[in-house]
Amino acid sequence: MTQTLDAWRITEQPAYQASNDEIAYYTAAYGARLPVMLKGPTGCGKTRFVEHMAWKLRRPLVTVSCHEDMTASDLVGRYLLGPEGTHWQDGPLTLAVRFGGICYLDEVVEARQDTTVIIHALTDDRRILPLEKKGELLTAHPDFQLVISYNPGYQSVLKDLKESTKQRFCAMDFGYPDPAVEGSIVAAQAGISDGLARKLVQIAGKSRNLRGHGLNEGASTRMLIHAGRLVAEGLTLRQACSLAVVTPITDDPDMRAALDAAVDACA
Amino acid sequence: MTQTLDAWRITEQPAYQASNDEIAYYTAAYGARLPVMLKGPTGCGKTRFVEHMAWKLRRPLVTVSCHEDMTASDLVGRYLLGPEGTHWQDGPLTLAVRFGGICYLDEVVEARQDTTVIIHALTDDRRILPLEKKGELLTAHPDFQLVISYNPGYQSVLKDLKESTKQRFCAMDFGYPDPAVEGSIVAAQAGISDGLARKLVQIAGKSRNLRGHGLNEGASTRMLIHAGRLVAEGLTLRQACSLAVVTPITDDPDMRAALDAAVDACA
Amino acid sequence: MTQTLDAWRITEQPAYQASNDEIAYYTAAYGARLPVMLKGPTGCGKTRFVEHMAWKLRRPLVTVSCHEDMTASDLVGRYLLGPEGTHWQDGPLTLAVRFGGICYLDEVVEARQDTTVIIHALTDDRRILPLEKKGELLTAHPDFQLVISYNPGYQSVLKDLKESTKQRFCAMDFGYPDPAVEGSIVAAQAGISDGLARKLVQIAGKSRNLRGHGLNEGASTRMLIHAGRLVAEGLTLRQACSLAVVTPITDDPDMRAALDAAVDACA
Amino acid sequence: MTQTLDAWRITEQPAYQASNDEIAYYTAAYGARLPVMLKGPTGCGKTRFVEHMAWKLRRPLVTVSCHEDMTASDLVGRYLLGPEGTHWQDGPLTLAVRFGGICYLDEVVEARQDTTVIIHALTDDRRILPLEKKGELLTAHPDFQLVISYNPGYQSVLKDLKESTKQRFCAMDFGYPDPAVEGSIVAAQAGISDGLARKLVQIAGKSRNLRGHGLNEGASTRMLIHAGRLVAEGLTLRQACSLAVVTPITDDPDMRAALDAAVDACA
Amino acid sequence: MTQTLDAWRITEQPAYQASNDEIAYYTAAYGARLPVMLKGPTGCGKTRFVEHMAWKLRRPLVTVSCHEDMTASDLVGRYLLGPEGTHWQDGPLTLAVRFGGICYLDEVVEARQDTTVIIHALTDDRRILPLEKKGELLTAHPDFQLVISYNPGYQSVLKDLKESTKQRFCAMDFGYPDPAVEGSIVAAQAGISDGLARKLVQIAGKSRNLRGHGLNEGASTRMLIHAGRLVAEGLTLRQACSLAVVTPITDDPDMRAALDAAVDACA
Amino acid sequence: MTQTLDAWRITEQPAYQASNDEIAYYTAAYGARLPVMLKGPTGCGKTRFVEHMAWKLRRPLVTVSCHEDMTASDLVGRYLLGPEGTHWQDGPLTLAVRFGGICYLDEVVEARQDTTVIIHALTDDRRILPLEKKGELLTAHPDFQLVISYNPGYQSVLKDLKESTKQRFCAMDFGYPDPAVEGSIVAAQAGISDGLARKLVQIAGKSRNLRGHGLNEGASTRMLIHAGRLVAEGLTLRQACSLAVVTPITDDPDMRAALDAAVDACA
Repeated sequence: MTQTLDAWRITEQPAYQASNDEIAYYTAAYGARLPVMLKGPTGCGKTRFVEHMAWKLRRPLVTVSCHEDMTASDLVGRYLLGPEGTHWQDGPLTLAVRFGGICYLDEVVEARQDTTVIIHALTDDRRILPLEKKGELLTAHPDFQLVISYNPGYQSVLKDLKESTKQRFCAMDFGYPDPAVEGSIVAAQAGISDGLARKLVQIAGKSRNLRGHGLNEGASTRMLIHAGRLVAEGLTLRQACSLAVVTPITDDPDMRAALDAAVDACA
Repeated sequence: MTQTLDAWRITEQPAYQASNDEIAYYTAAYGARLPVMLKGPTGCGKTRFVEHMAWKLRRPLVTVSCHEDMTASDLVGRYLLGPEGTHWQDGPLTLAVRFGGICYLDEVVEARQDTTVIIHALTDDRRILPLEKKGELLTAHPDFQLVISYNPGYQSVLKDLKESTKQRFCAMDFGYPDPAVEGSIVAAQAGISDGLARKLVQIAGKSRNLRGHGLNEGASTRMLIHAGRLVAEGLTLRQACSLAVVTPITDDPDMRAALDAAVDACA
Repeated sequence: MTQTLDAWRITEQPAYQASNDEIAYYTAAYGARLPVMLKGPTGCGKTRFVEHMAWKLRRPLVTVSCHEDMTASDLVGRYLLGPEGTHWQDGPLTLAVRFGGICYLDEVVEARQDTTVIIHALTDDRRILPLEKKGELLTAHPDFQLVISYNPGYQSVLKDLKESTKQRFCAMDFGYPDPAVEGSIVAAQAGISDGLARKLVQIAGKSRNLRGHGLNEGASTRMLIHAGRLVAEGLTLRQACSLAVVTPITDDPDMRAALDAAVDACA
Repeated sequence: MTQTLDAWRITEQPAYQASNDEIAYYTAAYGARLPVMLKGPTGCGKTRFVEHMAWKLRRPLVTVSCHEDMTASDLVGRYLLGPEGTHWQDGPLTLAVRFGGICYLDEVVEARQDTTVIIHALTDDRRILPLEKKGELLTAHPDFQLVISYNPGYQSVLKDLKESTKQRFCAMDFGYPDPAVEGSIVAAQAGISDGLARKLVQIAGKSRNLRGHGLNEGASTRMLIHAGRLVAEGLTLRQACSLAVVTPITDDPDMRAALDAAVDACA
Repeated sequence: MTQTLDAWRITEQPAYQASNDEIAYYTAAYGARLPVMLKGPTGCGKTRFVEHMAWKLRRPLVTVSCHEDMTASDLVGRYLLGPEGTHWQDGPLTLAVRFGGICYLDEVVEARQDTTVIIHALTDDRRILPLEKKGELLTAHPDFQLVISYNPGYQSVLKDLKESTKQRFCAMDFGYPDPAVEGSIVAAQAGISDGLARKLVQIAGKSRNLRGHGLNEGASTRMLIHAGRLVAEGLTLRQACSLAVVTPITDDPDMRAALDAAVDACA
Repeated sequence: MTQTLDAWRITEQPAYQASNDEIAYYTAAYGARLPVMLKGPTGCGKTRFVEHMAWKLRRPLVTVSCHEDMTASDLVGRYLLGPEGTHWQDGPLTLAVRFGGICYLDEVVEARQDTTVIIHALTDDRRILPLEKKGELLTAHPDFQLVISYNPGYQSVLKDLKESTKQRFCAMDFGYPDPAVEGSIVAAQAGISDGLARKLVQIAGKSRNLRGHGLNEGASTRMLIHAGRLVAEGLTLRQACSLAVVTPITDDPDMRAALDAAVDACA
């Protein structure tokens, strides 16, 4: 089975509306082929931004959600046993390195430490990926770039990037978009009116003010799109917000009352 | 061996009596193909609700009880060694994704963290399931939906869904049904008279008032059905409640006395 | 190799003398095919009771002593590599489910958590056993029943059955039999006179009064049978009690003196 | 490869001198085929006693030193991959069960908990050994007996035999032999004069008085035999005691001085 | 597949500017074939120094970034299963030992302890590498040398080199280069003017003064080169420093303000 | 592939200068084939002593540096998969047992506990090595001897030899050699003048006085030899001591100053 990156090529333009200079920053970093770290809360659009940049730069994008049982082999590849003995199968990162894609390791800090050997060799002058089990020293394709995401607020001291890893990356901060931008994103992606989208953004704003005062995190743009779609399926705004925003975000009765009131005020 | 979802198709209508708008909520979420999280105590009917909705929507239902040794491979599939080398075998989740079923991950928070990579890719715009060991990027069947259950009262800080996972789901609260509804459920499923079922529901009500005052959890609807069936097998109500409700629920002498008194008062 | 339950069929009537209504209770639970949990201290006859009931109900009995390294695969089965590739081998639980036996999981709380997936699917309406590695969804034989034992005094908070598991079982309490019953059990099984058996039961009674006052547990019926057999081999009562009761049960000099005095008082 | 117990048969009479009734006790327990637990400090002769009894009863003896990485498979056996696929290989315990030997599990409490399943099934009425991976339910040979050793002083609360395990065994206490007995053991086994052996036993006695006053354990009979052999190789008594007793037993300067003085007083 | 060290040969002279006598020191250590440990903070040029020395001494250089999941097998090699059974594949360290390269184990203290067996046998008179799984005792090529890096400030007590390992190495301290040297390094490697490079070095100096006063680590030379490249891609100095220095190094608002001020002062 | 001990035979006399009666002690212990434990700090010559004795006694010497990931299989051997199925490969210890070598387990306390089973069976009367996976009970060659090293100062309570293991060994203390002996060792092995060697020994003496006053360990004889070789490569004494003694041994500025002063005083 020949492996390629075709399945990871983005064929339709992902909707993205820029908030600041992030496109210029990323374009420069990609131009210098420097690795990039995206910092920011969940659901604020980091993944969509990378998709947008990959589409704009016409590069395939390999996205991997990292987790605490993930090892370097999950990224690099492994030998599989077939009818004619073992054959090597490239992992998602190796495919990107070999064929010139952007590899996006989402929440890389969750992965096990043996990813360090990979990240270091790919992010200094060498730009190599040692496939140790295969005995191959793969030099990265000139178009390859490594991108990782990182949520500074979540990490404990025990589970953090090593200083010697952090210093290899360019870093960009992400937050929620401006209300006007967020409203037009929600309207476009949920297929709802601008007016309804604005109401949802208002509700989100109130939830975000509660962050640190009883909520771990405010409502994300993704949640607003979910609520919009549920209205399009026939629920009322209050029903949709209950299902897609309030009930998922907290089990605390006081917080629920505060969020319900915020919904009522906007409905 | 060809794998299909036929074994998971529900052929008889599961008895279910709605308490609130849960059917409308779920129907809208399924209509938008949004992932759903069911919150609530054990034995209150979450599983039966999903069975009912799967039957109503004419979709196969793949139910998986999660546990702390469960890994992503248990859900996604693995290579098995056969006479002609290895062949791939889809796991239960992959079957649902490939053939368009509803996959219900019961108490997903118990599973190991590598399920995160799966849940994330299936619950955002991509709706893909990366079968990394197989080198396949499986796009979900249009009918596929992911449902998880979650008991907020049980989780410790150490073992909880990540905020970035929670925000991907619509959420619905579940509790015990109203007494009249619960009585008719018990009568129907245990094959006993309405009068006897009402007595059992009264007993359950008293046990649920003891929650947090010596009991971890009150008697579930399931326990009432068990007690009803034991009466149908010839035990007295007191014997049946001892066997199916009181002895399982607590070893504390005071609690047992309180529960026995509740049974006597209703017998 | 064809697998059957023949080796687990009980061909001779196991001696058992009932203390209360336990036979009626169990018969009703088996009649409704409800899962049963037996609670009580070690060596009080839980295993023998299940053997008796299996003999009485003419069902094969598969007993598994659980331990903290036991996984679901140990119960369900696994693929083994043979000359013609792999073949599936049913585990002890699967044999009982497939061919209609009673499966007794002794001290199930010791096993690893992945047994949860099994217990849940077998103890609700579905009565199925998902053989995930084999891709088979096995519906339980109509005669199958699941029985577990559980010692409430031993479990720590960290290692306990989940509430959602407990509530699926009917439960019965067990204790040591009444002196007369215990005496005739000991006489019959050790092949000794009733008088000697009575002395042994007296000694046991004194040891059980020391429980919580220096002893973790009093002498079990099993220990009395051991002591009786040693007398039948030619030891004196004092020698036999030293070997089979006192030395095993404690290393504390005061406790040993108290137990020795109890033996002397009865000899 | 056919497996037998021939290699474990004891062909020469092991020197053993009884201190109390231990031979009568053990003979009765073996007569009733009851499992036996030997309690006592290291190097006091428990292993040699079992060897002696095995020789006397003309049974092969399989000795296994347990450790914290030992699993049930190490005792029971496993499948090995050979040119014609897998074949089963009996572990040491299974050999004893199948062919009728005595199996001595030295310091069994060190082994992992999955040995419990084995011990329980072999030590109650069933006397069976479930070879779960092989799908075989092996009934013990009539001559089979299980013996374990246990050092009560060493075990922590976390690592102890379960009460439900302990109560299955007859138990016997062991200590150092009387001086006269120990002297003749040392003389015989080291090949030295009775006078020299008596001096070594005196030295050991002084070291045993220091137990709990700076030493974890006094000098064992084994150490005296070692010292005797070194004198036979040409060292002085002081050199031999330094090498075989004092330096191994402690690094504390005061304890060393005390032990050296004890040696000088006897030399 | 024949394995060689050709891929690890450095064909172009790596830019390196010496700060002290490090070249003389290293040359002497290599002359005596003594193992070397490089101590110092991340990104100060240790890797580049080894590359320079390998080029100067015309030896292939095998660099391995160690991590906490790394085992001796990852370094030494393993058997792989192919169509004709297993074949041995040398790991990166074995290649260096066999063919006479320099092996650089970056942050070796992160690796698992089984690397100790390797390091000890290679760093004393024996200069051997036991390939235990292969049953080969490989004597090191006369040109082989082992180099490790070690950051004293990072290691906890639990994770440190054993004293018996440390004492086998010659050790050299590394720090950031002098400003003039660092400026010319940055100018050369980023392809920017000397003036701009000097500004970047000034900014780095200020960040290094904040080490221990809110920053874990100051800006490394590598970061300055990144910033320089981004200016070459068209960003302003402030934009480039934000992306390559300030945002990666800290999330603390006060530290960011201090660093931004340092950038502004130099821009 | 036939395995032998030829590669482990010492063909050239290792330089060794005795400090006390250690050669007589060891010769007696080997004569009685008693196992030996060498106690003492790192780098004081324990390994070289064993090499010397192996050469003197004309026995092959198998040295294994133990570590915390080492299991019994690493010592005993394992099955490897080849073109004709599996074949057994003796581990280093098994080779010594089978062919009559001395096996030296350096820092055995680091290895995992399953080595206990090996050590016990090899160090009592049985002198057997159970190759459990192979089903072989290997009786030790008459020339076989087991030697272990042990550094009492390093071990924590959690990681220590069991008392029942310690008591099986003869033990010998090691320390640094007398200055005159050490000087001639250093001169011989580094190829330097006696005068220079004497200076190095003086420096080492001062560092050893700092042990426990800021240093974990003083400079070992090995370090002095390293320094001597670096002078032979052209470095000054101060440069050589910085590289081979001071920088490796400590990162504390005060300790470095004290050591530098000691070097200057002797230079």
